[in-house]
Amino acid sequence: MKKTGMLLLATFSLLFVSPSFAAEVQSTVNPETTFIFNTLLFLICGFLVMFMAPGFAMLECGLVTSKSVASIAAKNIALYSIAGLMFWLCGYNLAYGIPEGGYIGSFSPWSDGTDFANDSYAAGSDWYFQMVFCATTASIVSGTLAERIKIWPFFLFAAVLTGILYPIQMGWQWGGGWLAAKGFSDFAGSTLVHAAGGAAALAGAILLGPRMGRFTKGALTTPYAASSIPLATLGVFVLWFGWFGFNGGSQLALGTFDDAKSISTIFINTNLAACAGVMVNAVITRVIGGKTDVVMMLNGALGGLVAITAEPLAPSPFAAICIGGIGAAIVVIGSSVLEKLKIDDVVGAIPVHLFAGIWGTLAVPITNADTTFATQFLGTFSVVAFMFVVSLGVWFILKSTIGIRTSDEAQKKGTDVAEIGVVAYAIRD
Amino acid sequence: MKKTGMLLLATFSLLFVSPSFAAEVQSTVNPETTFIFNTLLFLICGFLVMFMAPGFAMLECGLVTSKSVASIAAKNIALYSIAGLMFWLCGYNLAYGIPEGGYIGSFSPWSDGTDFANDSYAAGSDWYFQMVFCATTASIVSGTLAERIKIWPFFLFAAVLTGILYPIQMGWQWGGGWLAAKGFSDFAGSTLVHAAGGAAALAGAILLGPRMGRFTKGALTTPYAASSIPLATLGVFVLWFGWFGFNGGSQLALGTFDDAKSISTIFINTNLAACAGVMVNAVITRVIGGKTDVVMMLNGALGGLVAITAEPLAPSPFAAICIGGIGAAIVVIGSSVLEKLKIDDVVGAIPVHLFAGIWGTLAVPITNADTTFATQFLGTFSVVAFMFVVSLGVWFILKSTIGIRTSDEAQKKGTDVAEIGVVAYAIRD
Amino acid sequence: MKKTGMLLLATFSLLFVSPSFAAEVQSTVNPETTFIFNTLLFLICGFLVMFMAPGFAMLECGLVTSKSVASIAAKNIALYSIAGLMFWLCGYNLAYGIPEGGYIGSFSPWSDGTDFANDSYAAGSDWYFQMVFCATTASIVSGTLAERIKIWPFFLFAAVLTGILYPIQMGWQWGGGWLAAKGFSDFAGSTLVHAAGGAAALAGAILLGPRMGRFTKGALTTPYAASSIPLATLGVFVLWFGWFGFNGGSQLALGTFDDAKSISTIFINTNLAACAGVMVNAVITRVIGGKTDVVMMLNGALGGLVAITAEPLAPSPFAAICIGGIGAAIVVIGSSVLEKLKIDDVVGAIPVHLFAGIWGTLAVPITNADTTFATQFLGTFSVVAFMFVVSLGVWFILKSTIGIRTSDEAQKKGTDVAEIGVVAYAIRD
Repeated sequence: MKKTGMLLLATFSLLFVSPSFAAEVQSTVNPETTFIFNTLLFLICGFLVMFMAPGFAMLECGLVTSKSVASIAAKNIALYSIAGLMFWLCGYNLAYGIPEGGYIGSFSPWSDGTDFANDSYAAGSDWYFQMVFCATTASIVSGTLAERIKIWPFFLFAAVLTGILYPIQMGWQWGGGWLAAKGFSDFAGSTLVHAAGGAAALAGAILLGPRMGRFTKGALTTPYAASSIPLATLGVFVLWFGWFGFNGGSQLALGTFDDAKSISTIFINTNLAACAGVMVNAVITRVIGGKTDVVMMLNGALGGLVAITAEPLAPSPFAAICIGGIGAAIVVIGSSVLEKLKIDDVVGAIPVHLFAGIWGTLAVPITNADTTFATQFLGTFSVVAFMFVVSLGVWFILKSTIGIRTSDEAQKKGTDVAEIGVVAYAIRD
Repeated sequence: MKKTGMLLLATFSLLFVSPSFAAEVQSTVNPETTFIFNTLLFLICGFLVMFMAPGFAMLECGLVTSKSVASIAAKNIALYSIAGLMFWLCGYNLAYGIPEGGYIGSFSPWSDGTDFANDSYAAGSDWYFQMVFCATTASIVSGTLAERIKIWPFFLFAAVLTGILYPIQMGWQWGGGWLAAKGFSDFAGSTLVHAAGGAAALAGAILLGPRMGRFTKGALTTPYAASSIPLATLGVFVLWFGWFGFNGGSQLALGTFDDAKSISTIFINTNLAACAGVMVNAVITRVIGGKTDVVMMLNGALGGLVAITAEPLAPSPFAAICIGGIGAAIVVIGSSVLEKLKIDDVVGAIPVHLFAGIWGTLAVPITNADTTFATQFLGTFSVVAFMFVVSLGVWFILKSTIGIRTSDEAQKKGTDVAEIGVVAYAIRD
Repeated sequence: MKKTGMLLLATFSLLFVSPSFAAEVQSTVNPETTFIFNTLLFLICGFLVMFMAPGFAMLECGLVTSKSVASIAAKNIALYSIAGLMFWLCGYNLAYGIPEGGYIGSFSPWSDGTDFANDSYAAGSDWYFQMVFCATTASIVSGTLAERIKIWPFFLFAAVLTGILYPIQMGWQWGGGWLAAKGFSDFAGSTLVHAAGGAAALAGAILLGPRMGRFTKGALTTPYAASSIPLATLGVFVLWFGWFGFNGGSQLALGTFDDAKSISTIFINTNLAACAGVMVNAVITRVIGGKTDVVMMLNGALGGLVAITAEPLAPSPFAAICIGGIGAAIVVIGSSVLEKLKIDDVVGAIPVHLFAGIWGTLAVPITNADTTFATQFLGTFSVVAFMFVVSLGVWFILKSTIGIRTSDEAQKKGTDVAEIGVVAYAIRD
């Protein structure tokens, strides 16, 4: 019995866990060379993650109706800009100025003055890499609330989110705060970025309410047709591309045999999880609905990517496929649950980022023996609860003061005409 | 006479061949640093090649009619996903598990367990780089068959192509099989990727037949208008961008003076071949048809890129321009030949990848003295014949069993509505 | 008084200037490793800048009317190709073959034959990096003249611009010519690339005249509506992405602690300037016009990027925000001035590249104590005057011979149908 158990465990390990690396060996690389490699990793992975901003923009432009596309474009370029400014103004130091095991850092602008000679990478390259993560969190919120939110209240929320909310909870873990002390593990942010952004989006969607007529006229029908499937597809491909930077850069170093090997493994697992997500949702939608739903395939890719993000290094290729595939299936189920709850998530960001993010974080102990289910649950719960509750408060204040919802008339005309003053696609034969 | 001949040869060399490098010098770089550089090259070039997937997707979305755009989007994200899964499941080991000088490797999943310490790069980074090449081959097939193929039979073909057909013939050369033993040379895959994919597409196009009414109503007319020229343009630019990874990464190393210099030369030649391709086709179409045909310019860029891919290192800049320009002209001629043969290639993938790929491979001996025309012909012929015949068989089996062609009614409604259940562009004023 | 002055200066320095780096220390990196790092920097940053070509293409495709989109696509892929060919044929040697402190290099094709062993990077990687800069200059001209220029005269102008005009003035500074000798400073080309391209565009716009009916029917109205806001947004994001290569690569080296740190700082300042540009224009347009003008936000990002390009290293984050924000405001004012002067700049390239470029170059002494306002003015004035006058001459010759303006009838039908023979968006339900 015991023997069978061990055999099962061994088989399981073989199937699910990446071959363990050799014990860490002293690096033979010159320290200045290591410094350059590490900095280069942050810069390359940083520009890849920066490129996720247009990825989200195109995905959302493609999935909203043609009357709200210019608003989405404006919101996406603004939120990336706001994130850059706010993360400099206070975000970085709120996250990384945290005392060991603590809860919050300090409100102060980031300064590039760190003496780098004693460090293993340029401080600025790390700031850049962390900043684009912060922007990603805000991107997640944008799509859910499309077509009925006023853009300036959204900008204000984005400023609070990127300058204060995201950095605080992120510091709990990556800044060495209390969650890190508890042993929580979230390699590249299934929870700290994705579930956090998804929770903020959920809070907004509840307070904002659904688009006019969205749940009164019955199921999702033509008036809500996605404006451009190719742009949405481009967006997902761009996100996938950027995700190599997102997960790969989270190795945080490139100066040793081990680091180079680890980043390679991360690239492979990240990719396989997304591949599985696409095909799982192709099969599910074909079998259930008769049609192969391309939007669900796109969101399947994202569900797979979000799920593998908490632990892209330890899993075997086969485990990565399983984690990603389940993440994608969760997106299908989650979308249907949200619809039943009459929560209107225009692009499916809540199932993709919140639900698949939770799944990915909870799944870490399956392949990473250094983590426990209890700690993973604690971390996920704390972050999601914090982000949901505080976001709800911020949205509520905005709603009670300047208002967050466009008028029914503006929704009829479209937010583009009402708020931006343009038509997004002016195509004449 | 003899002197004149030598002078001619010298002039020829000066014009066409890159200045020969100094005899290879012992590298002074620390081995661990070399390992990191090589791995980094595979990862960077790998993500560039990965990005060719959306390049193909946008090119094809742009060139098909607006009724088949969502299907093309679905096919492109699916084929990239299928390639990733299949190349893991058996593709890699079929190619690289080949005995020296042999014909086929082994059917087994790839495992990331290689001991890397004795190697000069992370095994995983190589897998990733090779995987994205495999996906490229499948992308080529997608566009040719657009607008009248059922998507699930296409998925099945893509699985066979990426899991079995591509890896087998690729292993003949890059896995150290019989073609490599014969002295065949194909630096980055004019034949192994492009002509191979083009041959599979040709087999499919023949068995599938043309789109309904394509050759009965006379020439290509409005009903077949490209849905979006800007998306097609974006696609080609993205492919061009990715091609730096495709050809540059095929140097396979970045740890020495020579490697860094070689990759730089490859970047330049790759770029010049595409530049020449664009302008040659601009001139040809303007002179012949009176209009400057932007689609032919786009395919000219690709024809130039495909042609230089077999040997992007040895040519002088001027030779690269000639090779690329001729590749583009071949695309114009080839497109017209296909149309006369009533073979319906929606995006021109056969002239671009098969015809220009053959040209590029056969042209290698012009600038690379280590190759012969006979061996280049042998390699090209073997690969094209193998891919064409076996693909024909696979398509035939699919046709005889589940069927590969959508009904005339579905073609009238558009494959998007029939198979995916959406309209690709829902644009309302 | 003196004390207060010094205190003010100190505060000012603290606010505006990046902390000075430690005195340059001898690098400990192996020379071959340095060679590889430097070459890699040129290649990575080069492909990022290459990707600005589709960035410009999408921005312009998005901002012109739907009847001129295919022409813009054709012009953009052609100008990138022409730049590649011409920069090889004579451009590089015109710029870098210049005598020290001189005015012009030599007319001769570039050859890849440099012995690299004594150099600190592969000569080819530098050629590639400089070539994509040259192409950028031509991209700037394309959008301004859209919708009423014949494409072949444009191609000819692009050939002269990229082969002769751009290289001559660029050699004055970066080739070590007379401007460099005077102490002019333009880190990545606010003047040498952006203002230069903008001046050539202005010359063309004046000689070409506005679009038919552009200033007779009153303000900019529906007939000139931007064809696709999402494509324009994508274009700006892609340009922003590419700009990290544009400015980061202009550090020209990655082989030391200092270089790695400097490039990181450049990334941050580049990003913050663009962020500020977006939000400044969001506020301005919302306050003045009542609507949040997304196109002005996009051009605000570009104005910020152009402005920081002359000196992305010395400014503190706060100074970068100020420089970028002012650059964006200049775009708003400049657009309005051009409209009053009845100069028709379809995409706003003149305010973005010429006006913000001048601002950025003149602002260098604020943060870089090694420069003076007088020298900056001399450099900017010389380059802009040279480019404007000579371009005017070239456009005049083209106008007097083959003609540069499409007929009114062709403008009515659209340049796409008239010159390319296609419809750019063929969307049918």
